[in-house]
Amino acid sequence: MPQHTTYELVELLKKELSEEQVTVNKTVRELHSKDESYHSPRLPDIVVFPKNTQDVSRILKISSQLRVPVVPFGLGSSLEGHVIPVEGGITIDFSLMNKVLEVLENDFLVKVQPGVTRSQLNKELKKYGLFFSVDPGADATLGGMVATNASGTTSVKYGVMRDQVRDLEVVLSDGMVIHTGNLAAKSSSGFHLNGLFTGSEGTLGCFTELTLRVYGIPEHVAAGRASFPTVQHAVEAVVSILQAGIPIARVELVDEPSIRQVNRFSDTHYLEKPTLFLEFHGNEAGLKQDVEFTQELVNGHDCEAIQFETDTASRNALWEARHNLAYAYIHGNPGRKMMVTDVCLPISELAGAVAHARKNVEDLGLTGGIVGHVGDGNFHVLLMLDMDNAEELDKANKLNEQIVLYALERGGTCTGEHGVGFGKQKYQQQEHGDALLVMEKIKRALDPNNLLNPGKIVRTDKKGAII
Amino acid sequence: MPQHTTYELVELLKKELSEEQVTVNKTVRELHSKDESYHSPRLPDIVVFPKNTQDVSRILKISSQLRVPVVPFGLGSSLEGHVIPVEGGITIDFSLMNKVLEVLENDFLVKVQPGVTRSQLNKELKKYGLFFSVDPGADATLGGMVATNASGTTSVKYGVMRDQVRDLEVVLSDGMVIHTGNLAAKSSSGFHLNGLFTGSEGTLGCFTELTLRVYGIPEHVAAGRASFPTVQHAVEAVVSILQAGIPIARVELVDEPSIRQVNRFSDTHYLEKPTLFLEFHGNEAGLKQDVEFTQELVNGHDCEAIQFETDTASRNALWEARHNLAYAYIHGNPGRKMMVTDVCLPISELAGAVAHARKNVEDLGLTGGIVGHVGDGNFHVLLMLDMDNAEELDKANKLNEQIVLYALERGGTCTGEHGVGFGKQKYQQQEHGDALLVMEKIKRALDPNNLLNPGKIVRTDKKGAII
Repeated sequence: MPQHTTYELVELLKKELSEEQVTVNKTVRELHSKDESYHSPRLPDIVVFPKNTQDVSRILKISSQLRVPVVPFGLGSSLEGHVIPVEGGITIDFSLMNKVLEVLENDFLVKVQPGVTRSQLNKELKKYGLFFSVDPGADATLGGMVATNASGTTSVKYGVMRDQVRDLEVVLSDGMVIHTGNLAAKSSSGFHLNGLFTGSEGTLGCFTELTLRVYGIPEHVAAGRASFPTVQHAVEAVVSILQAGIPIARVELVDEPSIRQVNRFSDTHYLEKPTLFLEFHGNEAGLKQDVEFTQELVNGHDCEAIQFETDTASRNALWEARHNLAYAYIHGNPGRKMMVTDVCLPISELAGAVAHARKNVEDLGLTGGIVGHVGDGNFHVLLMLDMDNAEELDKANKLNEQIVLYALERGGTCTGEHGVGFGKQKYQQQEHGDALLVMEKIKRALDPNNLLNPGKIVRTDKKGAII
Repeated sequence: MPQHTTYELVELLKKELSEEQVTVNKTVRELHSKDESYHSPRLPDIVVFPKNTQDVSRILKISSQLRVPVVPFGLGSSLEGHVIPVEGGITIDFSLMNKVLEVLENDFLVKVQPGVTRSQLNKELKKYGLFFSVDPGADATLGGMVATNASGTTSVKYGVMRDQVRDLEVVLSDGMVIHTGNLAAKSSSGFHLNGLFTGSEGTLGCFTELTLRVYGIPEHVAAGRASFPTVQHAVEAVVSILQAGIPIARVELVDEPSIRQVNRFSDTHYLEKPTLFLEFHGNEAGLKQDVEFTQELVNGHDCEAIQFETDTASRNALWEARHNLAYAYIHGNPGRKMMVTDVCLPISELAGAVAHARKNVEDLGLTGGIVGHVGDGNFHVLLMLDMDNAEELDKANKLNEQIVLYALERGGTCTGEHGVGFGKQKYQQQEHGDALLVMEKIKRALDPNNLLNPGKIVRTDKKGAII
């Protein structure tokens, strides 16, 4: 039972921070009550805007002393309810901590505050001939991307968010500040805290500074589109490309309904067939050989048309269209909410999983597009839901479950890149078995009162304690 | 205080396993009392040889019930005392669990038992046109390599051991069996237990099955040697190669004294100058361009001679010579013990660190070679010590400390790939600060009685409890 009123808590926070950094304004709280998903909103009691690490430490000390839940918030682009404060309390909005602190160009590293967005970072890095590789659909904050271990179209070559993290400054549940890593390219010193905190979704601590790996902008880039008679043909072509050892930088599946959305939203005229968007990075001679070999391989899978973009503008247009796909669906379905499935499977199981998903979408009478980072074995079914139609919502939940169970039975995971939040919490026991108990022991050791983003990832009993 | 005699413990273990799997034979215990380092040996009380996961679970249940320390043991090739049972107890030797269980060639995965060595695995993988990338100097077991997060010459391209781990079957301190991952190429589901258990050096659990990533043998490979007037020139050339974005697969520094050892031990006739051993993987055209560009770059750093090996035999001889370097030193210094420093720094600090190390070796009047995985910023000083010469041992310890402190002050780590064991435990507080408290909380949560390889990584108080 809390020992304080919200009024007292606000006064305390204002004293420790400043007047204008603490608000109970309803509009602001509403903005922090939801993410981009179909999950039901819940208002936080208070929203605070820290300016530095010390502010965050002060907030967590108060939260810990008064037993108030805290939820870190980037831009609210999560897809499984991660930032929804299901037990109320304080939401920490990191939008004032949005500086690129240092570009260590010779070490291919960058230090940023958690509120920096990926496009903001890339704009800064471009001056140095560098880029940050991870590119989820949303222009998310980097803090949020670390929190969910986000990925995107380039992870098949450059890895996921966790692979980019060299060091995190983290404020723990009691306000203590630690660093989880260092600046060296590798280390065998102590437990891998970088890896543990990446993907912890605010349940183990709040990030206040991130040191991330960056890459030189590739000397040469080739991008193209390959169209196939069916999604199966496209997926099987990807398997061939990977097995041939071609170091592809991006390989994205966009199915027929999704290509139609792209064309409508982005004013493109791409062939409305199941399509692979492809990209290669490297030196000129190597690239040419990779592209030729890929053409041979896709032709062996009945590729109907393959088109390489020759100029930078067309290439950018292609990836912009791909990135805007979720927004194309939202734009094309006003008043509806998005549900996106997110399983990832071993590549040998991908074709079967996509066929299973497509059949189930049709059997349930739903309409949804299939897209995916197929080089990683990760695909999404995008559904636009009428939240007032209980039957439709029920069918969508059933589909999501069918897709998850299919993946789990075949060595896959319920979430390749969106994270658990509370939407995927119900599958944690089935996916991890007794390993979930280990996660819960770690959570209990680091957040004994379950105040850091409670209700996410690990299970909680009716009294709010970690199981 | 233990509630049992060793005799009783042996009887219990023999009952749970079988007569021939449990021994107190002194010769066997002596073989399990040490690793390849200068650290002082200590005999285990008992050595057991499990045949399967259930055996390991039974051993850990007994260890936990009777409060007996347990130390997992692969081949004893660790370099910081990892497998030395500093508190006695049971050593678990995994040599009977040495099967390659399954090659999932279409998924680029392999399932192995922990006692499989890297050369044994590569021999099996070759049949499928695949290889396992991580190659420490020793032909270590894969279980040991996961335990220390080992790496080697190829991590600049393929990553370290942790990057290869998809799933571990782990027996926890109470005998419970968990899986830390799955078969998918990426996942955002739950805390990153793969990463946490990799590099945990037997302090959090014992591995009984490993699912690891493997790679297609590259279509084309080019390898060569480039000699420079000084180590500084060589290191600066590496920085240029990395900054040019050339996707080099291996880049190893071998200094002048070390090249002499190589020539003597491996019967080669390499120019006795600071040398980079280089390797490139890729398609034919791309490789040619990479090699030409590299030649241009090294020439800009006063490269005195560059020689590419044209046939597979010479290429293999080159890497065999590099891998045998530590043994060349041991062979050339009979009766002496090896101390190897192992810092890793941001690449921009590498040239300074190597110069600092070389100067300190000379100032202290020691003789030692410098080698390194310089593409990662990781280098070693190899010292051959007369263990009866207290002054020499003292100087070597002083050098090791100077090198570690230099690295820590510049954002580096005290160990790039050898791990902590007890040799680097004294630097954990300085390197990790309060993050060490987090590691200790995790250790306490998973091994409350501190029975799993006690005395390694985390601090222990005088009563044997974790601090």
